[in-house]
Amino acid sequence: MNPRVLALSGGVGGAKLVLGLDRIHAAGELSVIVNTADDFTHLGLRICPDLDTTFYTLSGDANPEVGWGRRDESWAFMLALEQLGGETWFRLGDRDLALHAYRTSRLAQGERLTTIMIDVAARRGLATMPLPMTDDPVRTAVITASGPLAFQHYFVREQCQPAVVSLRYDGAAAARVSPEVAAAFASPRLEAIVICPSNPYLSIDPLLAVPDLRSLLAKATVPVIAVTPLVGGRAIKGPTTKIMTELGIPCSARAIAAHYGELIDGFVLDREDEGLAPSLGMPSCVTNTVMRTLEDRIGLARAVVEFAGRLRGSGQRP
Amino acid sequence: MNPRVLALSGGVGGAKLVLGLDRIHAAGELSVIVNTADDFTHLGLRICPDLDTTFYTLSGDANPEVGWGRRDESWAFMLALEQLGGETWFRLGDRDLALHAYRTSRLAQGERLTTIMIDVAARRGLATMPLPMTDDPVRTAVITASGPLAFQHYFVREQCQPAVVSLRYDGAAAARVSPEVAAAFASPRLEAIVICPSNPYLSIDPLLAVPDLRSLLAKATVPVIAVTPLVGGRAIKGPTTKIMTELGIPCSARAIAAHYGELIDGFVLDREDEGLAPSLGMPSCVTNTVMRTLEDRIGLARAVVEFAGRLRGSGQRP
Repeated sequence: MNPRVLALSGGVGGAKLVLGLDRIHAAGELSVIVNTADDFTHLGLRICPDLDTTFYTLSGDANPEVGWGRRDESWAFMLALEQLGGETWFRLGDRDLALHAYRTSRLAQGERLTTIMIDVAARRGLATMPLPMTDDPVRTAVITASGPLAFQHYFVREQCQPAVVSLRYDGAAAARVSPEVAAAFASPRLEAIVICPSNPYLSIDPLLAVPDLRSLLAKATVPVIAVTPLVGGRAIKGPTTKIMTELGIPCSARAIAAHYGELIDGFVLDREDEGLAPSLGMPSCVTNTVMRTLEDRIGLARAVVEFAGRLRGSGQRP
Repeated sequence: MNPRVLALSGGVGGAKLVLGLDRIHAAGELSVIVNTADDFTHLGLRICPDLDTTFYTLSGDANPEVGWGRRDESWAFMLALEQLGGETWFRLGDRDLALHAYRTSRLAQGERLTTIMIDVAARRGLATMPLPMTDDPVRTAVITASGPLAFQHYFVREQCQPAVVSLRYDGAAAARVSPEVAAAFASPRLEAIVICPSNPYLSIDPLLAVPDLRSLLAKATVPVIAVTPLVGGRAIKGPTTKIMTELGIPCSARAIAAHYGELIDGFVLDREDEGLAPSLGMPSCVTNTVMRTLEDRIGLARAVVEFAGRLRGSGQRP
């Protein structure tokens, strides 16, 4: 794996751009580093929501309606679990369960999450391997007025209702990047690093909280580009603006660019936010960032890669 | 739970008689203590084959064809696991999985297996609660010429092909019976203890290897009756006679009675083996022990209970 492009991503929003990037690159030209701070153990099984969403998106198995799980899924397990009085707030389809059980079983044998996910992706014939940001345990805790909530309890069980006071990425400071992530950053043909339009606070900040990963990003000699998750001050999906409001941050793409600050060399804005470009304090690219169709995904991916090319050409980074 | 009858059982063969005993008793009059030495952790999930077979048999959910798992089952999970390259030698149906995940999840919270199984049985409305023989880990190791095999590897994956040199019940010596099992033995209205027609070496000996349990059985003041798993020197199902041959034991109901020896007060023989009765050296009851229909199960259960009544009446035990 010597990628030309390295993407940093969370779940559904990021995975859309990842799919676009995957479609315009040859096998091995794209690597994706995925948030694992949403991972949790549930019903004895290790569940990795962002990795799995990325995997299912790339393999064409993703459920197009809900942004999690698989298409053409059945629910016999969930119904039987409900009849037993088990916890059903986290929906696990019969086919999706296989991935969790397979992963859990190999983890129990001492294998690394990265190795397992690479094997799964290779077996499915993927050209792009979703890489965990780390093999070490990092877990997002959402601090609310009534105390901390484990991420999935906040996100799924409580449906993001509690107001966020702050966020904590437990384990991040001690986590190390895997050899595969380090190698992707060291790729001799690397041309761009893309921060996907994921929720910065829930999906990207956990990656940046891993010291090695932040340092690799800060030292990158290719353009680092972030794509806005906000259009006209609104998120396409998810609680980004709700959290920004609760944290006292203005709901604007400009605040996202400022959030990444010196870590990035360029910012991709939606056409609707073109007026913000002069005030970003960094190079920007204005394009359509709303990805409804595969063509939208590919179009945004091309725009991002071309933007990186312009930044390289302009000597923004040597 | 103050049972009148206490049954000791393994999986499918034993569960047939348990169902018969259940049908002729009022709720709470029967307790069943089930082998847990076949339990194992697979794909991250705690699986308890004998407990689950007993549970599904009592709840009417058992698969009538194969002696494991549930009827009306679907296999989406298994197929997806196969596509991932996962281990598929142990078949787990979509609905059956729910029980394993539910149990694993509660065990992970520090709950006892006994509490969980009682809750599951109560929720399903069972009159008879299958009790684990212990909440401590006991695991049968099958010693073969090429080394030890974990029980399910021997039984399911290798389909009982390797010759058995000996059997080891790891953990049994240190295991304690649960308060529920102790209470069942102490029931003031207890009238009989029945060793079901399970494989003595694989299913009943693990119970007898738990010192407390063996001692409770040895000190019982009600008749202890074993029901033969062999008819005409053959087992209805499973590897009983194969193992007996490998261990150098004659394949006869008489050898089974001798195996339990002083622990039992009476032995139930099949009609086909009536001629063995005089040579058993203990009271016997000759009846039909082949349980094809529910009526067969109920018929055998009645015969066993009546036999215990005769032994009590004869003062065999005060």
